[in-house]
Amino acid sequence: MTEFQASTPALTSRLSAVLNARSVAIVGASADPGKITGRPLAYMLARGYAGKLYPVNPSRSEVQGQRSYPSLSAIGEPVDLAIIGTGAEQVESVIAEGIAAGVKAFVVFSSGFAETGDEGRALQRRLSVLARANSVAILGPNCLGLANSATGLIASFTTALEETPLKRGGFSLVSQSGALGAYWLDIVLRSGLGFSQWISTGNECDVDAAEAIDCLVDDPQTRVIGLYIEDIHDTLAFRRALQRAAAANKPVIAIKSGRSQAGAQAAASHTGALAGDDALYDACLLQYGALRVDSLSAMIDAARLFLFDSVPPGPRLAVMSVSGGAGVLIADEAEALRLTVPAFTDTTLRSLAPVLPSFMRPANPLDLTGNVVQNTASISQALQAVADDPGIDVIVLFVGMMHSIASAFTDALAAARQRIHRPIVVIWMGAMESTVATLEAARIPVFLDIPQAMQALATAIRVDALQRAARTASLPSKRPAGAAATRRVLTEWDGKQLLRTQQAVGLPEGVLVPPATSAKPLTKSLNYPVAAKLQASALTHKSDVGGVVLRIGSDEALADAVDRLNAVGRALQVELQGVLVEQMIPFDHELLLGLRRDPRFGEVLTLARGGVEVELDADALTRLLPLDAAQVEAMLRGLRSARLLDGFRGRPAADIPAVARRIAKLCDWFLANEALEEIEINPLAVRGSDVWALDALVTQGA
Amino acid sequence: MTEFQASTPALTSRLSAVLNARSVAIVGASADPGKITGRPLAYMLARGYAGKLYPVNPSRSEVQGQRSYPSLSAIGEPVDLAIIGTGAEQVESVIAEGIAAGVKAFVVFSSGFAETGDEGRALQRRLSVLARANSVAILGPNCLGLANSATGLIASFTTALEETPLKRGGFSLVSQSGALGAYWLDIVLRSGLGFSQWISTGNECDVDAAEAIDCLVDDPQTRVIGLYIEDIHDTLAFRRALQRAAAANKPVIAIKSGRSQAGAQAAASHTGALAGDDALYDACLLQYGALRVDSLSAMIDAARLFLFDSVPPGPRLAVMSVSGGAGVLIADEAEALRLTVPAFTDTTLRSLAPVLPSFMRPANPLDLTGNVVQNTASISQALQAVADDPGIDVIVLFVGMMHSIASAFTDALAAARQRIHRPIVVIWMGAMESTVATLEAARIPVFLDIPQAMQALATAIRVDALQRAARTASLPSKRPAGAAATRRVLTEWDGKQLLRTQQAVGLPEGVLVPPATSAKPLTKSLNYPVAAKLQASALTHKSDVGGVVLRIGSDEALADAVDRLNAVGRALQVELQGVLVEQMIPFDHELLLGLRRDPRFGEVLTLARGGVEVELDADALTRLLPLDAAQVEAMLRGLRSARLLDGFRGRPAADIPAVARRIAKLCDWFLANEALEEIEINPLAVRGSDVWALDALVTQGA
Repeated sequence: MTEFQASTPALTSRLSAVLNARSVAIVGASADPGKITGRPLAYMLARGYAGKLYPVNPSRSEVQGQRSYPSLSAIGEPVDLAIIGTGAEQVESVIAEGIAAGVKAFVVFSSGFAETGDEGRALQRRLSVLARANSVAILGPNCLGLANSATGLIASFTTALEETPLKRGGFSLVSQSGALGAYWLDIVLRSGLGFSQWISTGNECDVDAAEAIDCLVDDPQTRVIGLYIEDIHDTLAFRRALQRAAAANKPVIAIKSGRSQAGAQAAASHTGALAGDDALYDACLLQYGALRVDSLSAMIDAARLFLFDSVPPGPRLAVMSVSGGAGVLIADEAEALRLTVPAFTDTTLRSLAPVLPSFMRPANPLDLTGNVVQNTASISQALQAVADDPGIDVIVLFVGMMHSIASAFTDALAAARQRIHRPIVVIWMGAMESTVATLEAARIPVFLDIPQAMQALATAIRVDALQRAARTASLPSKRPAGAAATRRVLTEWDGKQLLRTQQAVGLPEGVLVPPATSAKPLTKSLNYPVAAKLQASALTHKSDVGGVVLRIGSDEALADAVDRLNAVGRALQVELQGVLVEQMIPFDHELLLGLRRDPRFGEVLTLARGGVEVELDADALTRLLPLDAAQVEAMLRGLRSARLLDGFRGRPAADIPAVARRIAKLCDWFLANEALEEIEINPLAVRGSDVWALDALVTQGA
Repeated sequence: MTEFQASTPALTSRLSAVLNARSVAIVGASADPGKITGRPLAYMLARGYAGKLYPVNPSRSEVQGQRSYPSLSAIGEPVDLAIIGTGAEQVESVIAEGIAAGVKAFVVFSSGFAETGDEGRALQRRLSVLARANSVAILGPNCLGLANSATGLIASFTTALEETPLKRGGFSLVSQSGALGAYWLDIVLRSGLGFSQWISTGNECDVDAAEAIDCLVDDPQTRVIGLYIEDIHDTLAFRRALQRAAAANKPVIAIKSGRSQAGAQAAASHTGALAGDDALYDACLLQYGALRVDSLSAMIDAARLFLFDSVPPGPRLAVMSVSGGAGVLIADEAEALRLTVPAFTDTTLRSLAPVLPSFMRPANPLDLTGNVVQNTASISQALQAVADDPGIDVIVLFVGMMHSIASAFTDALAAARQRIHRPIVVIWMGAMESTVATLEAARIPVFLDIPQAMQALATAIRVDALQRAARTASLPSKRPAGAAATRRVLTEWDGKQLLRTQQAVGLPEGVLVPPATSAKPLTKSLNYPVAAKLQASALTHKSDVGGVVLRIGSDEALADAVDRLNAVGRALQVELQGVLVEQMIPFDHELLLGLRRDPRFGEVLTLARGGVEVELDADALTRLLPLDAAQVEAMLRGLRSARLLDGFRGRPAADIPAVARRIAKLCDWFLANEALEEIEINPLAVRGSDVWALDALVTQGA
């Protein structure tokens, strides 16, 4: 296990250098500013990019008013970045020429690589080799490029940059999809939020999403990172990058497509690669502090709160509304998202009373009534009273229309935002664009309906909590080894012999009674009741074939059970190892524990409620290793049925911290024993602080 | 039980007459068109209302260019509708004067009634009496009035009607909140959807939401009904109105505020009345075909599909996308909402292949690629191929930006919409307003992000299904009787004696052993094992005090148990009825059944999974009576744990239809036995087609 500080590599300079390129060549630059290879030049000229621009076009001496060069090598001056939009087959030779001419980095728009099949994949691999062998950076291929609002560098042909001004802002994006990246840019620019860096990584032959995130962590303008991913190859670098973002207090809001079965299938046919188990992406994002959302709208809505310094420290809302009905709807939506609308203190109620008409009793949600709304002094007074309440974290203000008095109202709000020390979030139905602009200039985020605002608040509060936890999360010491060549499932007896080398989880005392052997002398150390279980390597689901007898209470019953099990084995015609006779252990709770090595994500722990219930309505959580006891405890407490462990309805309580320590120790043992591919313990029996593997399926790899 | 056709009253003419008023008086009409009593006149004059307008203002001879009258009685011509915006204290006398002058209906803006306390409530009751005694209609008080886009009648002062043209459309709204109604109007008018009728019912001293819905059912222009409610008093009329809408195939999309605990509290303080159990509103809306959504956005999004004839007959989506990533996100969102993205047939795949680049394999979602997008012939071909697939219900098309080719693209879509017999739903990120307008003119609804579109589809499909089921739902024969004056909880023995008069649900054979009596001779008809349960009217939770002994297997054990239970009873110092000794019945499944009379909604059935699990994570459904066996079966199958009843994991299956018939019969018996306030059977034991009430708590009212 490596601590974050020790493991952070100096990855970030490469891409930062690209984003801050001071000289850019455009290979195949078109004189037509509407063509793909004409747009970057046109965009940069229009935005006053301060660096040098070198169109490369052998058939012209001048392109869009700039001197044109016949080739990269003919430029004869240092080139930081070359943009390539040629046919796929020419890309390799152009890059090779550029490397020879001293070009440091390349953005490759061209498609026709891994996304088209085996031939394209081979072509793309050659680009990867070229990049590594020559220490140059290649972004793409099949990407929309990048843009830096601070320098006006636009190494992209997205039409999202065609007209809207390149407004600077604190929001940056890393996207594996060019199209989704473009939509993000379009929305973010048109809404006036602005951006800092925008990076479309495409097929990632060299620069990947992790490196792009790293670069944004180091970008002083970036305050919030948006992320759209389909498939992460170097998951260790990705985990490191997310953790660096958490450490730098830069929230990461992520979309990972392919969550559903239908979506995963579509993603596989879209990207040509199986992205892997979605639950592991979920775990990875969550453990390293990135919050997963399902749409660009949700991402941008949550980012808005961070960008306007309006993320509350907790979930307690003070709701003020010009409509009583809207106040109720806000409370409904808040509660559904585990936000709260607590009662105001008596002091607050006393301060509010004089502001309201005599027949209104102040309460949370607060119905502002026409009297307050029409009177800016009253609004200010009400905001101040509510902001002074120690039991609230944020003021949510609902307004609708009110166009005629909008400016007086927004002025009062803007002044209050300066004065009071609580974030104010406004929901304004039917707001005019100018109203939104005025409020957002005063760092008051505005939403147009209730669910969006509540979802954004819940998301932002959760990102904050995730990033706090992520800062101390451990990282694995090396990359996943990939899938084992062979896998062998051990009998329960053999698996448990292996498990006896760990001290974390107890194992029932047991004896193997070989075939055609009498149980008694062997089992004399065991106390009744015992269980007898048929052992054969060909038999992994022994209870399904009648291979298990439980609650055996006497010598006679045991002898009988062993005979019967051997007969079952003979009938199945499998090679028998014998019958495992084990002392039965009384317990209070039943869990299911799984440990496995995923070729993409490495070691993984699954904890679930045991018994039949779990099959009816799964109650399971999966997390990436390494995990400490506190993280395992959080998993246990995160199960829907966690209350059972706490001693629900008279059932004895488990010592959850102690159980978590044992499980965490087992995880460490699994991490260290690399020959083990998988362990499934079902049930994992719990009583007090004790934990036993009652049944175990161990798989060895090689 | 009354069938719908028989019970439909001719309620609707009153309010229809108001909405089609041909002469309107405005009492206290202001010369200032910005004032509340100036606006209706100004709005109607601006919109060219065709009827007659009579400003009433004793201090002026002319108001906004119209001849003014000193009083309602001074008009001297027939007045269909008078608008009143005076102080609360004058309203009654103005209405009385109007009635004397032959005015048929009144819209009362004035506040200061039930929402302000006891005095206002009394004032409001006098208006109700006035309306009923004189057969006039009163809308309000404390309402925003109404508007009819067809006639230009605007009996409202909402600023939502100030500027936007009064576009006609198929969408109508009934709202108990004026503010929410105004926001709806603002959004609906600005988005170009248009509306037919808009009715704000306010405090409902006379005209209520049910009557307004009835009126919309009869309005030929209304195709979709939006509903915002806080509190329904006449729930029978409301159920009838919803069912009439279902029968007329007019979808009802409803917001009911106060779903959460926090929201319900806020609603109580806002409206001054406890709205009642939210689960009953849920049941009422669902059983009579209205779908509940949580925001105006969700309501309007779903309505959009109905208004553009784009509600698919089923959940099977064909997804076409200009971005592979967006296609995956659509599939993800669809699956989360139980929509499906099924594979295309081979025929469809063959038809699509020539449209795509050679390296692309057609699939659902279909990645359109740049080739298709740039070529309208290809788009048409692809749409036709997909529309011909028999396995899909709707085409969802994702587009982003593409402003430069938007008009060619929308033309191709509009042409396809005429030609193909599937609805097309477009998600267009960053769409221009003109693009949306063009598509919607061609009956193609447009959404701006994926979740909104998927939510709208899921909602609309569900409304359709609910309304189909609602058409055959029964209605109670009379209004709820209100809360019983007194309630008496019977002992299990007494309750079960009562229950023996029904034949639906079995009761274990049992005997009451009075105090100080020997069990044996009395219980000789029972076979072991038996249960013994202490009976005392002061003891309703007997198992909590050790008042129950189960699995008694012998005469000695029984005598012992009876002695012990009597000792428990004596120790508790309650008056004992005796010990109930019952034969124990083996069963496979455990349910909980509750029947009660709600003062607001009448008879109600709750079915839940029994046992400890239900307390950990409730699995219960509540529905209003009357219910037939098919509806009870749907309830049983709607439980999360329904698979258990089906014989999950080797557990014996229950005969669900037979069980449902028994429960429905019990419900009918409960309906007929009006002296019973409440029956709680826990557990209701099930084996095969048999059902037993193992324990029962019966409450009598008087």
